[in-house]
Amino acid sequence: MSDKLAIPAEAVANVKILDCTLRDGGAVNASQFSTETARAVYDACADAHLDYVELGYKDSSRYYSSAEFGELRFCDEDVIKRIVGDNKRDIKIAVMADVGKSDFRKAIVRKSQSLVDMVRVATYAKDMDKAIDIVKFASDMGYETAICIMAVSTLSEKELDNAFTQAVESDADIIYIMDSFGGLTPAGFRNVFMPCKIASHSRGKRVGVHIHDSIMMAFANTIEAILGGADIVDSSICGLGRGAGNCRTEMLAQFARKDIRPILECAEQHIEPMRKYFRWGCEYPYVLTGFANVHPSRAIDSVKNGESLCDLNDSLGIFY
Amino acid sequence: MSDKLAIPAEAVANVKILDCTLRDGGAVNASQFSTETARAVYDACADAHLDYVELGYKDSSRYYSSAEFGELRFCDEDVIKRIVGDNKRDIKIAVMADVGKSDFRKAIVRKSQSLVDMVRVATYAKDMDKAIDIVKFASDMGYETAICIMAVSTLSEKELDNAFTQAVESDADIIYIMDSFGGLTPAGFRNVFMPCKIASHSRGKRVGVHIHDSIMMAFANTIEAILGGADIVDSSICGLGRGAGNCRTEMLAQFARKDIRPILECAEQHIEPMRKYFRWGCEYPYVLTGFANVHPSRAIDSVKNGESLCDLNDSLGIFY
Repeated sequence: MSDKLAIPAEAVANVKILDCTLRDGGAVNASQFSTETARAVYDACADAHLDYVELGYKDSSRYYSSAEFGELRFCDEDVIKRIVGDNKRDIKIAVMADVGKSDFRKAIVRKSQSLVDMVRVATYAKDMDKAIDIVKFASDMGYETAICIMAVSTLSEKELDNAFTQAVESDADIIYIMDSFGGLTPAGFRNVFMPCKIASHSRGKRVGVHIHDSIMMAFANTIEAILGGADIVDSSICGLGRGAGNCRTEMLAQFARKDIRPILECAEQHIEPMRKYFRWGCEYPYVLTGFANVHPSRAIDSVKNGESLCDLNDSLGIFY
Repeated sequence: MSDKLAIPAEAVANVKILDCTLRDGGAVNASQFSTETARAVYDACADAHLDYVELGYKDSSRYYSSAEFGELRFCDEDVIKRIVGDNKRDIKIAVMADVGKSDFRKAIVRKSQSLVDMVRVATYAKDMDKAIDIVKFASDMGYETAICIMAVSTLSEKELDNAFTQAVESDADIIYIMDSFGGLTPAGFRNVFMPCKIASHSRGKRVGVHIHDSIMMAFANTIEAILGGADIVDSSICGLGRGAGNCRTEMLAQFARKDIRPILECAEQHIEPMRKYFRWGCEYPYVLTGFANVHPSRAIDSVKNGESLCDLNDSLGIFY
């Protein structure tokens, strides 16, 4: 790799990589992954020596119809066992519970009865108290836990400060900031990340980031986070994820000096072929919602409906 | 726009934007643009109040067959007059002469007989002396001039220092660094840009940047340049350009608080439709050549030949 990347090996030696292809990718295909694809992602991440692989959501069929959504929206223990089989690899397994959408007391069993290592709880800042309850429950059940604060780009300095203060006082091991709208420039990102890092590290907690690619900053901001002292960063193969998608696992793994061959093989054999049926990745409508700092769902609808960029731009009313 | 972009208006108020759609796009379609498309790009850039529009190359048919390449590879004065018509807009017109490929003494006429405002000379560091000759000629003929140093990611600190020292002693008004391979991270980019800026500003010259998107850093590094004090930055509509392409004019214009409607209209009506016949923009083979710090032509061939990512990666021999 060119030394022009100006990334000392030690800067990437300690950061953990969590692949969320099967979880965030569920926003693209309603979590309808075949067991074969789920196994391929799990094995590729293990073969590439990534640190965590997130298999899906621990959400409830009371919120997501099991007719419409695949089994990785619910991640029952028997499903996880079927994917991993007798072949538990040297990589930690994560699942995500959404505040308000998970019957966590039922869905999260004792760690001793599960193959799951980490439970991540996704929440908006306003629901932090609910997230803290789920984290406490999961922590008491024996799991490593994370609080993932979504849509951080919409929060004021005071709201961020409150969210970080609450989160670092919880039982969570990791505090995550998620740029769900993907509109943060590196400068804007640093303004959100550094206070979170300082608050988290000061309380002996780790800090993580999850960046969407709406204005094409997923990789740039993830690098910023790594150089800024992030302990763990998210990515997905081919960037599979809602709207513009995520930082690409294959780029992050290459950046972190991993063997990316298993990831590239999985990308070509299992993820890229999904483009025949599903659409994700940066298209200009996501840039517009990113700049406007609104949820990508507006852009997803625009892409579906073939709305012109000018009409979308006008409706977002940016600048003028 | 969200204040989370953390870009004070004054940071973008003074930077000049040069649209190189018709010039760098020539690497995609052999400069085969219709007069209608050329006019549409020229008018869109003028309507959006950009500062420069680069119409094409001032290269020679002795190097590029006029059977294979379109008229914007040569930019004869009558061609430029036909595009601009009687409709000279309030935007400067640039052309590019490639060292070793331009019969510049014949191609560059007196400024008083031309609609061109700026002549940019593209060179590799090793040919700086030849670039300086062309710049002197163009400057003597009355033009604003720029030296564009290509493939800066391949140069050692000493080679960069020599190149900048030579360039700032020339008649050039602007010294450009071009990340032709698109492999610079923001940290790597700053290591190249800051010495160039300091050398250029210390001699009363302006500094510019042109970034390719191979590892998806075109917009991130262009922002870095603007915040770092760049006087002028390049972009192209839809990122049209060799391989992974360039920073997108529509993103840069939006970032710089311009009216992007004319750019979006041109993108939808004239540039996006080119995807029916031509392929450009970030695909993973460009990420691999970017990381490997080699010319994107290797990735362009790989994409054409449908080579697997694993085989390309192995052939580049990154890390292992």
